[in-house]
Amino acid sequence: MTLVTLLDYTSVLVFAVTGALVASRAQLDLVGFAFIACLTALGGGTIRDLLLDRNPIFWIANPTYLGVAASAALVIFFTAHIFESRLRTLIWLDSFALAFAVAAGAGVALGLGHSPTIVVLMGMITGCMGGLMRDVVVGEVPLVLKQGELYITAAFAGAATASIAKIYLIETPLALLACACVTWVLRAGSLTFGWHLPVYKSTPPKS
Amino acid sequence: MTLVTLLDYTSVLVFAVTGALVASRAQLDLVGFAFIACLTALGGGTIRDLLLDRNPIFWIANPTYLGVAASAALVIFFTAHIFESRLRTLIWLDSFALAFAVAAGAGVALGLGHSPTIVVLMGMITGCMGGLMRDVVVGEVPLVLKQGELYITAAFAGAATASIAKIYLIETPLALLACACVTWVLRAGSLTFGWHLPVYKSTPPKS
Amino acid sequence: MTLVTLLDYTSVLVFAVTGALVASRAQLDLVGFAFIACLTALGGGTIRDLLLDRNPIFWIANPTYLGVAASAALVIFFTAHIFESRLRTLIWLDSFALAFAVAAGAGVALGLGHSPTIVVLMGMITGCMGGLMRDVVVGEVPLVLKQGELYITAAFAGAATASIAKIYLIETPLALLACACVTWVLRAGSLTFGWHLPVYKSTPPKS
Repeated sequence: MTLVTLLDYTSVLVFAVTGALVASRAQLDLVGFAFIACLTALGGGTIRDLLLDRNPIFWIANPTYLGVAASAALVIFFTAHIFESRLRTLIWLDSFALAFAVAAGAGVALGLGHSPTIVVLMGMITGCMGGLMRDVVVGEVPLVLKQGELYITAAFAGAATASIAKIYLIETPLALLACACVTWVLRAGSLTFGWHLPVYKSTPPKS
Repeated sequence: MTLVTLLDYTSVLVFAVTGALVASRAQLDLVGFAFIACLTALGGGTIRDLLLDRNPIFWIANPTYLGVAASAALVIFFTAHIFESRLRTLIWLDSFALAFAVAAGAGVALGLGHSPTIVVLMGMITGCMGGLMRDVVVGEVPLVLKQGELYITAAFAGAATASIAKIYLIETPLALLACACVTWVLRAGSLTFGWHLPVYKSTPPKS
Repeated sequence: MTLVTLLDYTSVLVFAVTGALVASRAQLDLVGFAFIACLTALGGGTIRDLLLDRNPIFWIANPTYLGVAASAALVIFFTAHIFESRLRTLIWLDSFALAFAVAAGAGVALGLGHSPTIVVLMGMITGCMGGLMRDVVVGEVPLVLKQGELYITAAFAGAATASIAKIYLIETPLALLACACVTWVLRAGSLTFGWHLPVYKSTPPKS
């Protein structure tokens, strides 16, 4: 199993758990849990594969991914009440899933020999799109766009790290590890210490 | 005309009517009706074709589908006021469209020789994604995710029926007919008798 | 640089500005601005390229598009407060972006030798889908579906103009120019003079 495959599996597993937690907040049934879990877990990578014209899509080539996501949904359906705060659990698991998914997305693009710009974009898309679709479908404000938090920015910084590391001839596994670390540290720092970039503040127009 | 083509046409026609009814509730104009009708009617099959890399997409290969969807929108624009309850009409027509679309999606995947897992998934995607996009775009709670109803579950059961029937060497037309019946009976039973799976209920965390 | 490329660049630039203005209304940070700008600017053309199986996607083939969209986001992040009414600016810029994007989409389909129906559809998709995704993602009512305004209708009329002009053997550049003009005039007339098609009005059912 290559590192990219391992990253893909881990991000699928953890994103599926976040999807199932969102389903629990929406009080869906078991099949609804599995649906949202799969959409969240496989959505980002699916868009990446469609854009890069990778064929077949990763979970069609290897349906084990679907099994992983569905199993995660099943387990969460029966255990979600254990978590003291499902929202906090969701947000923190989402931060790990993001880190793995960004690295997996960047890894696929690096493996196909794409330019640094496309590597960065594919890392961001793989990391952010699954969670974005999860939140849009259930009608919540996307976590990805929460004001005053680093999310897309963390994905961008991580994917850029992989891209830059590769330019300096650092080996892919190390570059992807650095990518996941940078992404997670920025996201976790934002959640814990409130790190953020300045947001747009409207000022009155000049008179 | 093959059975899959017939199922595709029927689901396109009926889903287009549901899309037009949603457009009537949002008070759009005629072109808006046609747009929502096409999105609903062709959305699920388009995602199926993109994921399976079927080329060209079914409605690019055969623009008659577009004509069917647009004509349905035109007719509904002038007749929607006839229905006593547009919401009830919409929900019941949607149940038929779902049944035909799930069968069409499963049929395409069976015809391409995909594994049972992918057949089930393609049935679900073809059946559920058009209606999901219809509801997300106009900002309504997706019918697909309505709490305490069988919808994705009905699609899952129907598509699984097709998949299992195929394994036991039942001929494809029969398998698809069984698929449509199982899907519709479950959905209709849910609407009429309130059939549903247990939904997630949060319980207080253990102290 | 061909006319279609020029139209693509212009629509990307102007749509990116509208995306950034929406991001400013949602008070996102700089990376959030760039994300929404890219989604808006590249979304419609990306869906067009996926549907037509154009490979690679236009912004993967030529990442300059990404640079244009990101630069527009950067400039707007620091200058959005200058506009007296960001909403009015947004709506008017959006009308220009729509006109250019419809022409670009129709131009691509014409170049590939597609049938008039597909040319019209690709014009509409390229023009409307980016803005639609922009609004759905930030949770606003899509501009595309605003009641009592010409938007999809303007795109339809413009794309149909290109298609009809082509049938009468008018050269592609002229056809695309006519397309952009018709689209913009209809949209602008709708914004200025309230032009609209009759919308669906429910009447009580016959007794």
